Amino acid sequence: MGYSDVDTLAINTIRILAADATFKSNSGHPGAPMGMAPVAHVLFNKIMNYNPKNSKWVNRDRFVLSNGHACMLQYALLHLCGYKVSMDDIKSFRTVDSVCPGHPEAHDTDGIEVTTGPLGQGFSNAVGLAIAQHHAAAEFNKPGFEVINNYTYTFLGDGCMQEGVASEAASLAGHLQLGNLIAIYDDNHISIDGDTNCSFTEDVIKRFEAYGWHCETITDGDDGLQNIEDAIKKCQAVKDKPSMIKLRTIIGFGSKLEGTHSVHGSPLKADDIKQLKTKWGFDPEKSFIVPQDVYDLYNKKGAEGAALEKEWEQMLTKYTESHKSEAADLKRRLAGDLPEGWEKNLPVYSPSDSAVASRKLSEIVLQKIHAAIPELVGGSADLTGSNLTRWKEAVDFQPPSLGIGDWSGRYIRYGVREHAMGAIMNGLAAYGTVLPYAGTFLNFVSYAAGAIRLSALSQVRVIWVATHDSIGLGEDGPTHQPIETLAHFRALPNCMVWRPADGNETSAAYYVALTSKHTPSVLALSRQNLPQLENSTIAHAIKGGYVVHENEKADITLVSTGSEVGICVDAVKYLKEKHNLAARVVSMPCFEVFDAQDKAYRLSILPDGIPSLSVEVMSTMGWERYTHEQFGLNRFGASGPYLDVYKKFEFTPEGISKRAVATVDFWKDVPNIRSPINRAFQQLI
Amino acid sequence: MGYSDVDTLAINTIRILAADATFKSNSGHPGAPMGMAPVAHVLFNKIMNYNPKNSKWVNRDRFVLSNGHACMLQYALLHLCGYKVSMDDIKSFRTVDSVCPGHPEAHDTDGIEVTTGPLGQGFSNAVGLAIAQHHAAAEFNKPGFEVINNYTYTFLGDGCMQEGVASEAASLAGHLQLGNLIAIYDDNHISIDGDTNCSFTEDVIKRFEAYGWHCETITDGDDGLQNIEDAIKKCQAVKDKPSMIKLRTIIGFGSKLEGTHSVHGSPLKADDIKQLKTKWGFDPEKSFIVPQDVYDLYNKKGAEGAALEKEWEQMLTKYTESHKSEAADLKRRLAGDLPEGWEKNLPVYSPSDSAVASRKLSEIVLQKIHAAIPELVGGSADLTGSNLTRWKEAVDFQPPSLGIGDWSGRYIRYGVREHAMGAIMNGLAAYGTVLPYAGTFLNFVSYAAGAIRLSALSQVRVIWVATHDSIGLGEDGPTHQPIETLAHFRALPNCMVWRPADGNETSAAYYVALTSKHTPSVLALSRQNLPQLENSTIAHAIKGGYVVHENEKADITLVSTGSEVGICVDAVKYLKEKHNLAARVVSMPCFEVFDAQDKAYRLSILPDGIPSLSVEVMSTMGWERYTHEQFGLNRFGASGPYLDVYKKFEFTPEGISKRAVATVDFWKDVPNIRSPINRAFQQLI
Repeated sequence: MGYSDVDTLAINTIRILAADATFKSNSGHPGAPMGMAPVAHVLFNKIMNYNPKNSKWVNRDRFVLSNGHACMLQYALLHLCGYKVSMDDIKSFRTVDSVCPGHPEAHDTDGIEVTTGPLGQGFSNAVGLAIAQHHAAAEFNKPGFEVINNYTYTFLGDGCMQEGVASEAASLAGHLQLGNLIAIYDDNHISIDGDTNCSFTEDVIKRFEAYGWHCETITDGDDGLQNIEDAIKKCQAVKDKPSMIKLRTIIGFGSKLEGTHSVHGSPLKADDIKQLKTKWGFDPEKSFIVPQDVYDLYNKKGAEGAALEKEWEQMLTKYTESHKSEAADLKRRLAGDLPEGWEKNLPVYSPSDSAVASRKLSEIVLQKIHAAIPELVGGSADLTGSNLTRWKEAVDFQPPSLGIGDWSGRYIRYGVREHAMGAIMNGLAAYGTVLPYAGTFLNFVSYAAGAIRLSALSQVRVIWVATHDSIGLGEDGPTHQPIETLAHFRALPNCMVWRPADGNETSAAYYVALTSKHTPSVLALSRQNLPQLENSTIAHAIKGGYVVHENEKADITLVSTGSEVGICVDAVKYLKEKHNLAARVVSMPCFEVFDAQDKAYRLSILPDGIPSLSVEVMSTMGWERYTHEQFGLNRFGASGPYLDVYKKFEFTPEGISKRAVATVDFWKDVPNIRSPINRAFQQLI
Repeated sequence: MGYSDVDTLAINTIRILAADATFKSNSGHPGAPMGMAPVAHVLFNKIMNYNPKNSKWVNRDRFVLSNGHACMLQYALLHLCGYKVSMDDIKSFRTVDSVCPGHPEAHDTDGIEVTTGPLGQGFSNAVGLAIAQHHAAAEFNKPGFEVINNYTYTFLGDGCMQEGVASEAASLAGHLQLGNLIAIYDDNHISIDGDTNCSFTEDVIKRFEAYGWHCETITDGDDGLQNIEDAIKKCQAVKDKPSMIKLRTIIGFGSKLEGTHSVHGSPLKADDIKQLKTKWGFDPEKSFIVPQDVYDLYNKKGAEGAALEKEWEQMLTKYTESHKSEAADLKRRLAGDLPEGWEKNLPVYSPSDSAVASRKLSEIVLQKIHAAIPELVGGSADLTGSNLTRWKEAVDFQPPSLGIGDWSGRYIRYGVREHAMGAIMNGLAAYGTVLPYAGTFLNFVSYAAGAIRLSALSQVRVIWVATHDSIGLGEDGPTHQPIETLAHFRALPNCMVWRPADGNETSAAYYVALTSKHTPSVLALSRQNLPQLENSTIAHAIKGGYVVHENEKADITLVSTGSEVGICVDAVKYLKEKHNLAARVVSMPCFEVFDAQDKAYRLSILPDGIPSLSVEVMSTMGWERYTHEQFGLNRFGASGPYLDVYKKFEFTPEGISKRAVATVDFWKDVPNIRSPINRAFQQLI
């Protein structure tokens, strides 16, 4: 293709935009954008397929800036390409309500695929995007119709390279032979603490080769445009391995401080920017300038992209004629809607049905709905037999060459890699054709906290099947028994935490999780068997909280979740017989969904005039919002058969009753007891 | 040295003990103990230096079972070696209050160095133990006195190999050239999901070589005892690299199901155990049997270990004569006591002192105390200049060959590896001569949640310097602004979360964190400047909560932490002037420490009769325990200059006053308002 002066001009324009924007906001990271402008220009102007006028085109190449602090690079490119990022937007970089925030946010900015910044996440999201692409290609491509064949590109820096989440994802990507994934590593030798020599001296190429990646090295990343293009094309040609390009660049290229950590996270000085502009033929007195030649160059690329999509649309029209159901399925998935009537497959239980562990109830749900929801793609962090996340007929998602699955498989063996699993699910969800769920023990969902936070922030639908949810796992002991975990994820905005008490509640949890297009869910599920409750129905449970056992003249309301609801029901009898106290029982499988009900409903469940006691075998934190008193476990658990452990901590009808009596006694002199549902003012949400 | 039948007998004894114990408890993992019994026997009987009668001897070799589910292997060895693990203890495996819980717990069981089970942690702890050893050797060894020269050994399985935390730690260990660290990888090809081929096909040796490790491969791990010994000795001789031995074993060796995942996490069947015993010359009808020859073999080793320690003690006596202060220092450190009078170095502030960011106040503390507390070893996950974790004169802990530090350096460049940093700190603390602290942004402490949970469970003193603690970090935006983080760690048992409001509170936080021998701490520190408060003193703040601004006729109590306390103080004036309301202000820098005060004190701070409002710019979860109403942020933050972000969310004197007025109004009809400090019953702690 050949490169000319206008390419150099474009690259310098990007560099100067990054310098101008960080200078104006007096905040941000000019160094990486200035160093990576050449590779970004080659990628966005010569390599990638995309249509800036439709950032949702399913077969677009995906781009992920894993070193999200370099976001001015991405904003500059989105602007040049013609996405909905104006020069005014760039001028508002890092100010409140700008579409150019301090790190890229997918739900705010046109053309951003995933929310990045927390290091290692974007790279791992890219692995998820590449998995989804391979999976979608296997599902939708037909002879003569290559509907899906996009590449996924990701930039990453030394920080991402060092994060464990990226190591996990890289190992899995190598195993999965994700040929359409190309990562470009900005090897600039600089991290915040100075030279990478102070903590990062490993041989990155050798490590990635050990994972099974194809690797390329480019030594002249600051100006070797043709070399960059050639390397990327070589990687594109490697179809049975993901590729990693180690690109030597100079951080802050052009600055008087280039090559030092001073240009990493602080704006350049005014005189430094002036010398840049002078050196590169720009007016040193003007800022936020894009030469018309550069706009023209990118407009041309944008037009090519629009033409590409048009061509693709024409193919899709023909595809729709010959493959009607596949085409309809693709369209439906991309809208995020589930197939009509899928929910009729949800199992329903009656109180006479036998006691079943909620992890098993979850397995039954998956078994019954997987055929109706083809976009459901499951997995586990090497705990399939414990999490019960795999339906019987499932095929593994594997490279066909291994002989143990294929690209259309809907079950991912994530390995013991919880954090990457979380980040990969974010990528899967972002692709558009997959609805991901995956399992591990609830306690080890915490390993993935960084990823789940981004699920919530970027508003993607992913589902954690979090089994072995309490001291009820028994013998494995306190190293495996969650105490703080539910409080942690309940405190995370836009994250639903479900802890179902029986079969109908488990079905309800799946119903809400699957139909909440913009919210991740954590389903906390028991190892031990749980009885089917009176008055539990899907319709009740989808309100987040409801009355399991009513008593119109109650002395106390017991409020509980999951495995403790049944014990509370047993405590009702105990309280009546031993203490002549009348108790009602509320099951509250999901705080967040209960909070979304109107106040009248919430007050009907947790009414004024009656003292209330929460019962849950973990941290009491957060329960004060719903109940007057709390019975929980603000200490670590114990190793032993689960009934012994429950007994040790007094989570028995007797132990609950003891606290209930104390609660009634403590509140008996208070006139007009006010339900905690009543608040002085609305929270900011 | 040569191996004979008694070695084989010992190995089979260990295997059968593991089978018997898991069978009796009907729970646990026999496969890995049976597979790793040979290497464990070689290590414990031929290689390691330890005295089972004094498991705290500082120069003992350290052993860490990173695949902690294999703990019956460790319990069997501790029993044979003569630690305080009796046969009755082994029979009580996985029952409540046993010293042989489901995974190894350091504070419960004699001879266990660190608490393991959550995969990847133990390996990373071992890196910490090895760092501490190198550091202690540099500090305490003198010509003619090799006081510290122990090795650290760790076993790990496929799970640990896949976890990102272990990848991070391995990369750092290679960089640091930790010659005295030897890891033995149980390459049994089996994980819970079946063959490792389904998710883990990387070249592990090549990866570790890429990190800078020396690697050995043993193909006959089930019976090649001499090969195992030779390989370990080769690794011992490599002084400038950590070593990894890839040991091929058969999981569940001897069982009819050997080599399958069926023996991983379930006890063997009765008849399978019988055939084992018959095959290996044991009485098939008897369980929990140790032949006397095996006891004799281990007693001999124990006697050798006792003699070794005695010899060492004699050396130490001479050392004490010539190096009195070093010897006293070592003794003091091992007792966990700080040097007398160290606290006099803590900075003290008065209200007229200028406003300073609490991250900077933290830096001042470190600058002032580092000389007085030589065991303090700091670091950062590549955010030194932002966390301000390094005192000016600090020397980096680095292999001297790099020319950028030395082994006695007290500042660790962890790289962008938060999770490994947390796990390594657990190892540093467990060694006994180091008091570790390290920094990252508060939001990224969550990456290390798995490690911090184990800090709390295993009761080690580590300190997180968690800066940029809220939306107050401003421009970096919601990807970096913690919302749920404090709730998460406040819900974690035995973990102190501090959010100091000014200089004296920062000094108090350090005082309590440093003097709490058995509790980790997270110090949440601001990026932005905070004023020095009236009535703030170290003596007040070390109670966890105190009155910053008293008002005897208060209409409301405002309760706050960190950067919002000063705004609450400003709101007092606003409330008086605009609404004629009298407010008092409580600063509550640490919930956990406040909870530990007697009830009379707590009630004096949060008295009956006055409605209260909490003010904190993050999740309100947990505040209901202390206040009637809560003003917080139950949503994600925003990117912009911090004052703009505070204003957007109304954390201003005006915004606080608005909620205070609503609170007073809402509670005005309630007679005898009860402080939330009053509870119906005591929590289980």
